[in-house]
Amino acid sequence: MKKMDRISITGYKPSGFVKKYQELIHDIMIPYQYRVLSNQEPNVSKSNVIENFKNAAKALRGEKHDSFYGMVFQDSDAGKFIEAAAYSLATFQDKELEKIIDEFIDIIAEAQDEDGYLNTRFTVQEKEKRWENLLEAHELYCAGHMMEGACAYYEATGKRKFLDVMERNAEHIYNKFIVNKAEGYPGHPEIELALMKMYRLTGNEHCLDLAKHFIDCRGVDPHFYEKERKARSWVVWGSNPSNYEYQQNNKPVRELSEATGHSVRAAYLYTGMADLASETDDKELFDACRRLWDNIVEKRMYVTGGIGSTHHGEAFTKDYDLPSDTAYAETCASIALMFFASRMLENEIKGEYADVMELAFYNTVLAGIQIDGKRYFYVNPLESIPGISGQVTSHSHVKITRPGWYDCACCPPNAARLIASLGQYAYSEKDDTAFCHMYASGDVEFKNGLKIECKTEYPYENTVNYKINGNGNMAIRIPNWSEKYTVNKNGAEINPENKDGYIYIPVCDGDEIGIELDMTPRYIYASEKIPYLTGKVAIAVGPTVYCFEGVDNDGDVFSLSVDTSKLPVVEEYDNDLLGGTRKMTVKGFKKEAQKGLYTSKAPTYTEKDLTAIPYHLWANRGENQMRVWMTEK
Amino acid sequence: MKKMDRISITGYKPSGFVKKYQELIHDIMIPYQYRVLSNQEPNVSKSNVIENFKNAAKALRGEKHDSFYGMVFQDSDAGKFIEAAAYSLATFQDKELEKIIDEFIDIIAEAQDEDGYLNTRFTVQEKEKRWENLLEAHELYCAGHMMEGACAYYEATGKRKFLDVMERNAEHIYNKFIVNKAEGYPGHPEIELALMKMYRLTGNEHCLDLAKHFIDCRGVDPHFYEKERKARSWVVWGSNPSNYEYQQNNKPVRELSEATGHSVRAAYLYTGMADLASETDDKELFDACRRLWDNIVEKRMYVTGGIGSTHHGEAFTKDYDLPSDTAYAETCASIALMFFASRMLENEIKGEYADVMELAFYNTVLAGIQIDGKRYFYVNPLESIPGISGQVTSHSHVKITRPGWYDCACCPPNAARLIASLGQYAYSEKDDTAFCHMYASGDVEFKNGLKIECKTEYPYENTVNYKINGNGNMAIRIPNWSEKYTVNKNGAEINPENKDGYIYIPVCDGDEIGIELDMTPRYIYASEKIPYLTGKVAIAVGPTVYCFEGVDNDGDVFSLSVDTSKLPVVEEYDNDLLGGTRKMTVKGFKKEAQKGLYTSKAPTYTEKDLTAIPYHLWANRGENQMRVWMTEK
Repeated sequence: MKKMDRISITGYKPSGFVKKYQELIHDIMIPYQYRVLSNQEPNVSKSNVIENFKNAAKALRGEKHDSFYGMVFQDSDAGKFIEAAAYSLATFQDKELEKIIDEFIDIIAEAQDEDGYLNTRFTVQEKEKRWENLLEAHELYCAGHMMEGACAYYEATGKRKFLDVMERNAEHIYNKFIVNKAEGYPGHPEIELALMKMYRLTGNEHCLDLAKHFIDCRGVDPHFYEKERKARSWVVWGSNPSNYEYQQNNKPVRELSEATGHSVRAAYLYTGMADLASETDDKELFDACRRLWDNIVEKRMYVTGGIGSTHHGEAFTKDYDLPSDTAYAETCASIALMFFASRMLENEIKGEYADVMELAFYNTVLAGIQIDGKRYFYVNPLESIPGISGQVTSHSHVKITRPGWYDCACCPPNAARLIASLGQYAYSEKDDTAFCHMYASGDVEFKNGLKIECKTEYPYENTVNYKINGNGNMAIRIPNWSEKYTVNKNGAEINPENKDGYIYIPVCDGDEIGIELDMTPRYIYASEKIPYLTGKVAIAVGPTVYCFEGVDNDGDVFSLSVDTSKLPVVEEYDNDLLGGTRKMTVKGFKKEAQKGLYTSKAPTYTEKDLTAIPYHLWANRGENQMRVWMTEK
Repeated sequence: MKKMDRISITGYKPSGFVKKYQELIHDIMIPYQYRVLSNQEPNVSKSNVIENFKNAAKALRGEKHDSFYGMVFQDSDAGKFIEAAAYSLATFQDKELEKIIDEFIDIIAEAQDEDGYLNTRFTVQEKEKRWENLLEAHELYCAGHMMEGACAYYEATGKRKFLDVMERNAEHIYNKFIVNKAEGYPGHPEIELALMKMYRLTGNEHCLDLAKHFIDCRGVDPHFYEKERKARSWVVWGSNPSNYEYQQNNKPVRELSEATGHSVRAAYLYTGMADLASETDDKELFDACRRLWDNIVEKRMYVTGGIGSTHHGEAFTKDYDLPSDTAYAETCASIALMFFASRMLENEIKGEYADVMELAFYNTVLAGIQIDGKRYFYVNPLESIPGISGQVTSHSHVKITRPGWYDCACCPPNAARLIASLGQYAYSEKDDTAFCHMYASGDVEFKNGLKIECKTEYPYENTVNYKINGNGNMAIRIPNWSEKYTVNKNGAEINPENKDGYIYIPVCDGDEIGIELDMTPRYIYASEKIPYLTGKVAIAVGPTVYCFEGVDNDGDVFSLSVDTSKLPVVEEYDNDLLGGTRKMTVKGFKKEAQKGLYTSKAPTYTEKDLTAIPYHLWANRGENQMRVWMTEK
């Protein structure tokens, strides 16, 4: 049984830090992405997403058309883009954008086959190959993203057209896999969580059944992809169908206990599993989710909330393999981890889930976007080494500045939809209780009638104030990093019980609740089981992990070490620094340059004030050394 | 002009440490390798080297025969094996081994074509493909190794048969590339240095001309391999012919200043260049060698004398990219670095060359061999992480125990020939001067008539004594790590001038010279330009780098740090430890296990005596954590 429900997507109007990012999405990223998707943006990888749908429609009508262009999963960008635009519409009134999306949806609708099939890659050409390659062809993945877009657009505008299209598409898939008993499960999980959204929005039981089907049958026959491969003569990339752990089909998902394989696929799958578990009160399935969660959080997650240690398959590797400089830590994977965390919260209300959700958001997710909103990281290393990163084969995936767009453009629209819908993660509700998981400044309207006005300069200030409209209860998360905190109600300090990281406070109309957190900078130490981090220390303030860039430290951070006997000082908020932030001054040492590659002469260290900035703001000032984990001295 | 000449290969009779290893080669490795080469050793990758020659002979006679088996460079194992056996014969009287080699040479001789061509891969089958694929087919590489074997066997036994075969083969190559002006240069350099050996031994000017030709034409046309690729329809592996830096043909070799590409190929090439430079007094060529040497030693060499940072192409990467745990540091590459160092010494007598030669020998080269002589490392990491090394794609090449044999078996016979000929590196001569580059215990007979008896337990003791027979001069290297040292002659301390790392002492018959070196354990610090080693320290005693293994440290070295304010203590020599060695006790700390992957709780450290062993002895006691670079505390 679900412990809480999401608020409506129109329920949160941002201010402060979140507003700044949501405006960036609305003002810059969405228009930019639309130009990319419609091939109007010069000097970036061609997208062709909209043309693909037009060509599919022409193909269905038997008209002359161009070839499909792009990755096999190109359609997913349409889903993610519309989803982001929908959330943005729910916040910002923008008739022009709505018109653009309506037109796009008209184009999409025309690309749907009579039987409900909708995928441009196998409609523009090679219809006979439909559903032959679940391992690689991403048809279910694209459908999932389109369903999410359809749900969001309906919620934002009340317009059903896209949702109707995707319900027909879901029915097509239902017929294929349930009625006609086609074997198999998605190579890239995602449709599971999308079908759960569809079910919750429409009540269509076929969507629930289908989500349950894909989850339940996965891994029951680990050899499915091998049989599938034998039955067809074509491949997309020629993926090895016997890579069971990588494919997350090594065993039935209820038996899993290690997060393996492609990290985005993994976290999408676990999200769908957690969705289904809360919806159907499936304890066994939840237990599997919990084991996977523990494996990630206790053994396979970066201190920045990044997951997926290697670019080989964009994947999880082994416990404690968390290299900083060759990290993959894809932006999408941290977004997926936020999804998973939010669904775990719906199963059990524990602050530890929101802690990770917040960690991923303020660090890896935001690091994915340049401050001007126009360039994006896919890979989020914890150390950048000019001359090696991007230059050496082992570091070939590590870029030291953000590129403009990618052939495989999964991350930018994913970040856009996540940020544009942050209210969905920050707030939820159950009965007469308003849950506050993240300190997102703004006005929140709960479906239960409560309204709150949250005022905070978080994550740059440690105070959060809520003004209540209506009667009920508030449940406010206290982050695990804030050992000390104070709570006051209408000016008087109160001591509400802290249950699993949440404080519960009954509220009446007009009440004012104030929270003061402990945002003293803190040093973070890694487990001795991570071999790469012996003797290293990271620094965080609240949810924000800091990093050291060359540009702030005389061009060189690798010769620096941190004096942990002294506390770092967070400087005043600086409007002019990196679009507005607070840098940090850390006492430390600089090793004097030594002669030769190796020497027996003991190094000389000089005291030095080191400067750190929030990790998510790195790489906004050209090519730079960057390091999160510093040597402790 | 050569500053010194090699001693004859029969000129050094080992005792002490070197004898132990030369006996291991003679008693264990050579018989083992012969069994492998003749397909008599079960449970290892099939070699088929000898059968290949038999089949080639049959093919030449038009008889029925089996297919060629193995890598395209399989013949090179024959050359290296005979070379090692020859050196071993020069030291140990072994008529049985000599008979085996004589028979093998008879087989080889029959596999030579009438025109002098000798390569089983393209004689057993596909004769029409000869010389079509210099990039990949390794014909010149194999010829080089066979020439080296032929030279060594002639020197060891006075038997000319193999040398005659290889002179005919050299003449065939001379006709092909000089007389008939075939374009191109070897994909895998090696024949250059082999031809220089042939020339020096036989005086055959064609060998010198050919070596010079391959060196001079390399990189003049960087597009040669591309043209070659276009002209043929077949490939071995499908190597990209446009990878100029990797192929070391990006520019004429005289213009090179960065060590690039496959590290063994690079160092073999530079060795041949240095050989030619000293032989022909070619200052420009020597200057290129010096630039390459500096680039390696100042920017691209591990503290263990390993080179080649990446398994991607077994190659050099970029300056200061020297990761410990994903190091390639191939055994063969350190052997090749010793070759290069020895040839640089023949150009200019500077201790820095011998320092590196010794460093590579006592660390990476010896680490290549298990103490029982039966298992070998190809890859020599500076950190071994059970659970990650060998398990994760980025670490897939890193083995944590030595395998028995390899499909690509380059390292074991290469280590055998190097160790069996150590006298060639330890000693050399010029006019009436005897040069001592490495402290190799034993009796040395110089061609100039001097004889010395060197007595030392080096590298486990710091005293070296020489007893002189004859009159002349001794030039003894003082290692760069021994800042202090004393020299005495016939019991009285003397203060000979130290010129570029060598002390020169006139000696008369009966003189006794004693050297006492400073073998206090020393901490080694890496340049701040190596990002992976900030805050790290290594420990060495004399030429020996030490490492920490789990088995000596309660199973866990990653939680340990070293207290560099205290000096390590080298324990008494222990006959029973790892075949005889001295372990080291180091004061340090153990971090108490922390709860969770990351914590803000400052770690607790407890004082602990840490145990280290010589790096070359690691991985002789099962699967273990191992670390060279420790955190300094």
